[in-house]
Amino acid sequence: MTVCYDYTRLARVGMPEAIFCLNKTTSQLRAIVTELLERPDNPVLFTRMSDAQYQTVRPLTGQALEYDEESATAVLHGCLPARNGTVAVVTAGTSDIPVAAEACRTLEFLGFKAARIADVGVAGIWRLLERVDEIVDHDVVIVVAGMDAALASVVGGLTGQPMIAVPTSTGYGAAADGETALRSMLTSCAQGVTVTNIDNGFGAACAANRILLALNRT
Amino acid sequence: MTVCYDYTRLARVGMPEAIFCLNKTTSQLRAIVTELLERPDNPVLFTRMSDAQYQTVRPLTGQALEYDEESATAVLHGCLPARNGTVAVVTAGTSDIPVAAEACRTLEFLGFKAARIADVGVAGIWRLLERVDEIVDHDVVIVVAGMDAALASVVGGLTGQPMIAVPTSTGYGAAADGETALRSMLTSCAQGVTVTNIDNGFGAACAANRILLALNRT
Amino acid sequence: MTVCYDYTRLARVGMPEAIFCLNKTTSQLRAIVTELLERPDNPVLFTRMSDAQYQTVRPLTGQALEYDEESATAVLHGCLPARNGTVAVVTAGTSDIPVAAEACRTLEFLGFKAARIADVGVAGIWRLLERVDEIVDHDVVIVVAGMDAALASVVGGLTGQPMIAVPTSTGYGAAADGETALRSMLTSCAQGVTVTNIDNGFGAACAANRILLALNRT
Amino acid sequence: MTVCYDYTRLARVGMPEAIFCLNKTTSQLRAIVTELLERPDNPVLFTRMSDAQYQTVRPLTGQALEYDEESATAVLHGCLPARNGTVAVVTAGTSDIPVAAEACRTLEFLGFKAARIADVGVAGIWRLLERVDEIVDHDVVIVVAGMDAALASVVGGLTGQPMIAVPTSTGYGAAADGETALRSMLTSCAQGVTVTNIDNGFGAACAANRILLALNRT
Amino acid sequence: MTVCYDYTRLARVGMPEAIFCLNKTTSQLRAIVTELLERPDNPVLFTRMSDAQYQTVRPLTGQALEYDEESATAVLHGCLPARNGTVAVVTAGTSDIPVAAEACRTLEFLGFKAARIADVGVAGIWRLLERVDEIVDHDVVIVVAGMDAALASVVGGLTGQPMIAVPTSTGYGAAADGETALRSMLTSCAQGVTVTNIDNGFGAACAANRILLALNRT
Amino acid sequence: MTVCYDYTRLARVGMPEAIFCLNKTTSQLRAIVTELLERPDNPVLFTRMSDAQYQTVRPLTGQALEYDEESATAVLHGCLPARNGTVAVVTAGTSDIPVAAEACRTLEFLGFKAARIADVGVAGIWRLLERVDEIVDHDVVIVVAGMDAALASVVGGLTGQPMIAVPTSTGYGAAADGETALRSMLTSCAQGVTVTNIDNGFGAACAANRILLALNRT
Amino acid sequence: MTVCYDYTRLARVGMPEAIFCLNKTTSQLRAIVTELLERPDNPVLFTRMSDAQYQTVRPLTGQALEYDEESATAVLHGCLPARNGTVAVVTAGTSDIPVAAEACRTLEFLGFKAARIADVGVAGIWRLLERVDEIVDHDVVIVVAGMDAALASVVGGLTGQPMIAVPTSTGYGAAADGETALRSMLTSCAQGVTVTNIDNGFGAACAANRILLALNRT
Amino acid sequence: MTVCYDYTRLARVGMPEAIFCLNKTTSQLRAIVTELLERPDNPVLFTRMSDAQYQTVRPLTGQALEYDEESATAVLHGCLPARNGTVAVVTAGTSDIPVAAEACRTLEFLGFKAARIADVGVAGIWRLLERVDEIVDHDVVIVVAGMDAALASVVGGLTGQPMIAVPTSTGYGAAADGETALRSMLTSCAQGVTVTNIDNGFGAACAANRILLALNRT
Repeated sequence: MTVCYDYTRLARVGMPEAIFCLNKTTSQLRAIVTELLERPDNPVLFTRMSDAQYQTVRPLTGQALEYDEESATAVLHGCLPARNGTVAVVTAGTSDIPVAAEACRTLEFLGFKAARIADVGVAGIWRLLERVDEIVDHDVVIVVAGMDAALASVVGGLTGQPMIAVPTSTGYGAAADGETALRSMLTSCAQGVTVTNIDNGFGAACAANRILLALNRT
Repeated sequence: MTVCYDYTRLARVGMPEAIFCLNKTTSQLRAIVTELLERPDNPVLFTRMSDAQYQTVRPLTGQALEYDEESATAVLHGCLPARNGTVAVVTAGTSDIPVAAEACRTLEFLGFKAARIADVGVAGIWRLLERVDEIVDHDVVIVVAGMDAALASVVGGLTGQPMIAVPTSTGYGAAADGETALRSMLTSCAQGVTVTNIDNGFGAACAANRILLALNRT
Repeated sequence: MTVCYDYTRLARVGMPEAIFCLNKTTSQLRAIVTELLERPDNPVLFTRMSDAQYQTVRPLTGQALEYDEESATAVLHGCLPARNGTVAVVTAGTSDIPVAAEACRTLEFLGFKAARIADVGVAGIWRLLERVDEIVDHDVVIVVAGMDAALASVVGGLTGQPMIAVPTSTGYGAAADGETALRSMLTSCAQGVTVTNIDNGFGAACAANRILLALNRT
Repeated sequence: MTVCYDYTRLARVGMPEAIFCLNKTTSQLRAIVTELLERPDNPVLFTRMSDAQYQTVRPLTGQALEYDEESATAVLHGCLPARNGTVAVVTAGTSDIPVAAEACRTLEFLGFKAARIADVGVAGIWRLLERVDEIVDHDVVIVVAGMDAALASVVGGLTGQPMIAVPTSTGYGAAADGETALRSMLTSCAQGVTVTNIDNGFGAACAANRILLALNRT
Repeated sequence: MTVCYDYTRLARVGMPEAIFCLNKTTSQLRAIVTELLERPDNPVLFTRMSDAQYQTVRPLTGQALEYDEESATAVLHGCLPARNGTVAVVTAGTSDIPVAAEACRTLEFLGFKAARIADVGVAGIWRLLERVDEIVDHDVVIVVAGMDAALASVVGGLTGQPMIAVPTSTGYGAAADGETALRSMLTSCAQGVTVTNIDNGFGAACAANRILLALNRT
Repeated sequence: MTVCYDYTRLARVGMPEAIFCLNKTTSQLRAIVTELLERPDNPVLFTRMSDAQYQTVRPLTGQALEYDEESATAVLHGCLPARNGTVAVVTAGTSDIPVAAEACRTLEFLGFKAARIADVGVAGIWRLLERVDEIVDHDVVIVVAGMDAALASVVGGLTGQPMIAVPTSTGYGAAADGETALRSMLTSCAQGVTVTNIDNGFGAACAANRILLALNRT
Repeated sequence: MTVCYDYTRLARVGMPEAIFCLNKTTSQLRAIVTELLERPDNPVLFTRMSDAQYQTVRPLTGQALEYDEESATAVLHGCLPARNGTVAVVTAGTSDIPVAAEACRTLEFLGFKAARIADVGVAGIWRLLERVDEIVDHDVVIVVAGMDAALASVVGGLTGQPMIAVPTSTGYGAAADGETALRSMLTSCAQGVTVTNIDNGFGAACAANRILLALNRT
Repeated sequence: MTVCYDYTRLARVGMPEAIFCLNKTTSQLRAIVTELLERPDNPVLFTRMSDAQYQTVRPLTGQALEYDEESATAVLHGCLPARNGTVAVVTAGTSDIPVAAEACRTLEFLGFKAARIADVGVAGIWRLLERVDEIVDHDVVIVVAGMDAALASVVGGLTGQPMIAVPTSTGYGAAADGETALRSMLTSCAQGVTVTNIDNGFGAACAANRILLALNRT
């Protein structure tokens, strides 16, 4: 398999191409890693990498590849240089944590700080109200929530920060694998909430990256 | 057309049969009204009655039929005797008002008090927080909301009253004619929220009636 | 993992927070159990707990955790004190039993009595008709049914009790994992039927709890 | 427009081709009627013919075309010769009547007797139970119902007749223009219920025709 | 587990209750079999019984239970007495065979003859045309087809027999687990085609049973 | 409004840009026509142009614009020069005619011949079988069909021509505005059937244009 | 009707509450306008205001209300003070213009500059490539596109600006009222694209406002 | 099992019947292979054949069956004779490769040349622009893409070749198992794009075969 990694994307749009590992075969992953190992100046993020996939490429990479199980991500050749900008990643329940972790690790890879604000679901609204001041201290807010996704609307009504909502595929029945959370966020009564694909913590971090780069340019 | 009104339903399940007028023809409505006029001891509620429909049956009924345009309901032969029990009907936006009005008028017809608590959408959460004490003074809470329907989850997390959530068909695009609100309410993170069909203010009032009758029995 | 259990929910809305175990990892469950073991005055219900999950936490809890396989629930630190109130949990087929069992065990945990009325599907309507008197002896009726969910409408037309309908994900093809039962219940021709998420026996019990608490307050 | 009416269908499958008028233009309808007028030996049924459409073709046909507004059907050149066989057409609510009327008029056109058994919705189950003996006197049963369509399951469990279920597009919200009734009937807990398209009273009558012809052959 | 088998269904509607085995646990199946073994005069059909399920109940039943792997059915206490009536079960592809087999075995259990007419898909229409004479020799036609389900329309246009169409969940992508075949059959351009749930060979046989019983009554 | 008509598309991909009129306002249409009138060497096709829209632009264009009501198309500055290539446009019912007409007029505008083969629905399969020889005389086959769209599979199994299937939004209920026909065609059991959007006669003609241009190049 | 306008929203989240006029009755609109006229220091934006609605409130407001038909918006008491920040609003076709206009007018109301970059659909990719330099001169990019919405992915791959994608309900058939464009944008292969509800030009402008306020803070 | 292979399809429509292996049982596959082995003059393609399936039939076929794992296809009795005609198979990402491989191997089996043009996704549009000249050298273009499927529109706007678009089931969440790519391609803004079922590389090759045969006939 020939690998055609997009080496100029970082220069062009401010983010390097990432490797999405879900459903990639062992031989595909090995071919990609082999090519990328020859470019140590080119940091790369792997997302949705299972522990099993990590074990199959580890013999090739040794310590050059840093794997994190909670977020199912791996970083090759280290992170990008640190830049100004912090992001609050807000979650409601335990099930949203892997998606939030993917967002956080992506932000760290891109050179930004990310702070998790967890367990602030609206079924106990005071938990969120106590932490609003903390949230608005950040440059960008990412809200990760499943099922009714009510958290996005409440946070969006309390803060004026750029806000990215990530629906998650938690729950069962009418939750419809995250479809309900997605549509709930798209119809949020709070103004100016934008939305990513279901479970797309990586995409939310990339959207934050676009905003933070603009802030760094000012 | 023969009319087979279910005269024993009130005795059997505590609610008289109501006449759902949407899509009924003029001749169908007239046949129904004509029969019911002969039973002045049998109070009847008409729902989804358009002003045009009202005008076509008015010559038959005279003042025996009390029409209310906001809720699109009409009451024939007066309301049921007053009973103990009050319901808080909570709404977020202007578009939810007709559905809330249908719930309130149905409750009044059934002999109960209903109080509207409007304009408490979660995009400005303090408006709701200021009125929680008022809400919990009622025996049952009906929450009417469209789009993300986040209001149901927030109210459900703040109160322990029996709670009935009514999704509304407001909004556009991903709101999907109330389907998003419906699914959001069904997956509410608040415990013990039950749901009715979209825009079904009448059904919510009937569900409240079942609960209030039980409270009256105790 | 930090655990932020909502210890005040019982006081606030009359139900303690429950732990939904589906998809929780072993380490997440252990962290939760470890924290909760230190609060023996705080009874907790675990739902959707698989036997495998139970085996992994059992060494930590010993006999403090009572597991029930049929309902896939476990109770830590015993049930809440018994309160007045009984619920009829009505089912049609064998496949609906686990959902009904979850409702019953949740009710028992919350201090109420639950009676199962099983195998009364409408394909043999006389089985249901024989037991109507038994059903109306209860304060609240929960109907658990899948596929066409016709049972909800028939029971709703025969009784005036507060009624909660739970669609189940039984069947195949057009049953659509419970979506058909859900929509059938939402459009029930019986007045005042309210509905929970698919397979949500726990949620139905919580809705009953709200009603029974109101009855206890009177 | 050339008209290619299928003159041999009656001989081939026992039913003449019918003309479905919905969305046909005036000129299309006139061309069809003009051709068919020249074949007085060939009885034809027009379905979904609006009163406005009827008015536009009436000058051509005079009394050869018998229009019926309730069923929105018209018969040209009279009905087929009477044959043995009767069908019970069972409905729950007023909104189901036009579909039932289409089924009945089609059966009469095909030479069979049809008896309407109306207003036997399961919200008042005794109304249906009182008429079971009447229903089982017929050779075939057609059940027309919308929303939860519970009537199909209850009738199917009480009778052993060949049974055809017709979902209707009545109701709103989760009724989804008849989709819920359709799926409910397809997953009926009664054995051997078959289903037609939504609002397809004509199709149900044609299915009954196939069965009744077989009975006549025996 | 108490088993409430509906012993009077055969007398009431002409078909005994069948046991749908999908998702039933070993202990549930054993309880059912144990009870039914005590009623040797009561023939019972088990559907969707996996080979693994069969192995777990076989020690209880010995040769009283006749299992057939292709149709995943088992018959306890033999079939019903033979009656007059034959059914043509028509299929297009290899994937439709298990569903057709379920229909055939159910018919045989109910006392009727079933003939399979396989591999007559419309992509090679002459295969079907060659066998039309054979098909119309039967009292009822069952068409089993997936994907575009065009076979149902072509057969329906060539024959006047009572016809039952069974969509199957074969194919991938836009086939949508049989949903496309289901909707295609419901909108068949052939008159009088009725439809069952996806993959429901058993239901089609029960519908044929209703028709064949009527034929036997004449 | 500035108009940016793509004048080089004909040279680039062999088809000029067409003007899709649906939902365009009068002022938008007038601005477009005004600009295009100044380029008499640039033939343009307008699709989905209502008669009302035609009346509003006619004063500007005079006879330069040739309108055809059946296909709802108009041609400005005449058709493209005639080229070799003929297309058979096959339809089943009257409702499919406007879509077929759009395909035919587009083909004529592009310089090709189109022959309509109408009323060959599979409910009377012999009508189609009689005309197969005529169909295979053409270079490309377009099949236009709604509801079950079985015609596409039967034609695809009888001919080896390049074949383009166009689903139509005819029918009601489970026809789902053409969605069923679309999915049926996508899962056709005939090999090598390709599909366009619902009602997209224009797109089918453009696809034929791509093929016919390739044939002209050989 | 009591009006509860949220006067503190501007201070809290940097945007005043807007009035969504779709489906509001004349009396509701008049009540709102009457109240807001008494607060000339409080600029308000009305969206989805039809010309008919404008005519009914104009007698009350006189010139205080500036209506714009293309965007269906009106501004009461003038715009907010000008702030730094410009937005590129990129569109493909004529049908997307009203949504783009809503975004532009909202941005102007909020004090920002908006530049329209129209007619750059990817069917003629060079049109877009010619204007990339112009697009990247702006602080934020809003892409408005319907049907396949391919424009969002191409722009997202060419620029690193914060980017908000707005699906539109243009097209027919498989375009599904904008659902296809919505899902296409959510699964964009370009990194960091965020999405709003269908046709929600207002929401996109509010999201841009959040970003531009952050840029002004730096 | 009797095997009814359609031996005349090659002569009739220019393509031999292929064997779709997905979900076929070992005994079904063995029966088919056994029959086909006796007809060495009849080349056959097997699609969606897993490696496990290949292992079970290999003992029967020996080297007569050539298996290819990447495309999951096998060829029995060699390919068809080489014919004139080449196809460009264009893909965006790694996940689309198996579908492209199925298309290529089918084309080779049918006697045509296929060239893969991979890794030209529109997130880096210059990769595609560099290869347009190469693409237009082919007689037919097949575009294989998932998620937003924007590649189909961009290629369709750059080339005038006959074009077949194949949506793939890659991605997650709103990608909806290829449904989004399918609908995006059906609503492509490029003129004359036709579409196959999701993941149907085989079908796309068969559609190309129809076109290439026509080119060979000229």
